[in-house]
Amino acid sequence: MSYSSRQNDGPLDSLIRALAGLPGLGPRSARRIALYLLTNREKTMTPLMQALEQTAAQVRACSACGNLDLSDPCRICANPQRAQNIMCVVAGVADLWAIERTGVFKGRYHILGGILSALDGVTPDMLSIRALLDRLEGTEEVILALSATVDGQTTAHYLGDRLQDARPGIKITRLAHGVPVGGELDYLDEGTIMTAMKSRALV
Amino acid sequence: MSYSSRQNDGPLDSLIRALAGLPGLGPRSARRIALYLLTNREKTMTPLMQALEQTAAQVRACSACGNLDLSDPCRICANPQRAQNIMCVVAGVADLWAIERTGVFKGRYHILGGILSALDGVTPDMLSIRALLDRLEGTEEVILALSATVDGQTTAHYLGDRLQDARPGIKITRLAHGVPVGGELDYLDEGTIMTAMKSRALV
Repeated sequence: MSYSSRQNDGPLDSLIRALAGLPGLGPRSARRIALYLLTNREKTMTPLMQALEQTAAQVRACSACGNLDLSDPCRICANPQRAQNIMCVVAGVADLWAIERTGVFKGRYHILGGILSALDGVTPDMLSIRALLDRLEGTEEVILALSATVDGQTTAHYLGDRLQDARPGIKITRLAHGVPVGGELDYLDEGTIMTAMKSRALV
Repeated sequence: MSYSSRQNDGPLDSLIRALAGLPGLGPRSARRIALYLLTNREKTMTPLMQALEQTAAQVRACSACGNLDLSDPCRICANPQRAQNIMCVVAGVADLWAIERTGVFKGRYHILGGILSALDGVTPDMLSIRALLDRLEGTEEVILALSATVDGQTTAHYLGDRLQDARPGIKITRLAHGVPVGGELDYLDEGTIMTAMKSRALV
């Protein structure tokens, strides 16, 4: 059995290795989780296995926006209540979920599947940009909801140019920059404070 | 799909809930892992599912010591090369693994399955103490490798008494207390420093 990570002699080692490769987990937390699963089989291992099987069998990517759902098109794309004239472009499904949790956005989404990155070798043809341009019929505003990082902003600039070329005059917006709600000024970087100062609003 | 933890409408929610219940994980890390699994199905989801199935089917507890292995008795209990006259008592399988990784101990183990705790309501009859007393034939030394916490030391005292009653004259030892290797004095509690000072050794 897996006393060290050097050995490779059984399903428990495979399990620990599979767990240790998940984001945020390492060998130590993977061992802890594997032991927890083994000592609480009915309550934890069986539900996890069932959920994995059902998720693998039933969840698929929406062929329109790239969201993960049980149906294709996904429930957001298929929902006639969602505004058809505004589209929010996000890097990944996690960002879509984060925005949906706020309940503030009632339009449609488009998932790029990543952001441009010279370091990671992500080029425009690796992102879902062609598909985005092809589904802008009836869209009046595109919100580029990308991270406020260098790569995120590079991607936003690039997308802005492509969108203007494809749909001249379309309204292109981005998320506001500023002090996070609940954030202390003391801990904020100067770039954020400068931006927040420039974009200050009347109270 | 699972935009919030309030909803409950599908296998992806079940998966996120199952993951979030694992030690060290919460809703946020569970969502991240679920997305990672879904976007890397062949490389991560399939191996994890296979490892879980094989582990559930093949790994069992050793009826002698309580260790988890593919065989019963486990490879440590069945190994004639391991010293039969020295037994190391640990609280759980994780502790056995931790000691095995050092390679310093060549005897047999006994897993208690927990430690005595008034707070958690763990009483002696809930631990594998009877089984321990029943397999001391030929054992000359019992190492109580329990945590240096109040509960761990209470358990060690209680076990010491039980062992002395059952096997008068048997050698009972505990792990040394002191400064952890690589540990800075500055960050150590006073109890450890006092103990390390009292047990100081010649260089």
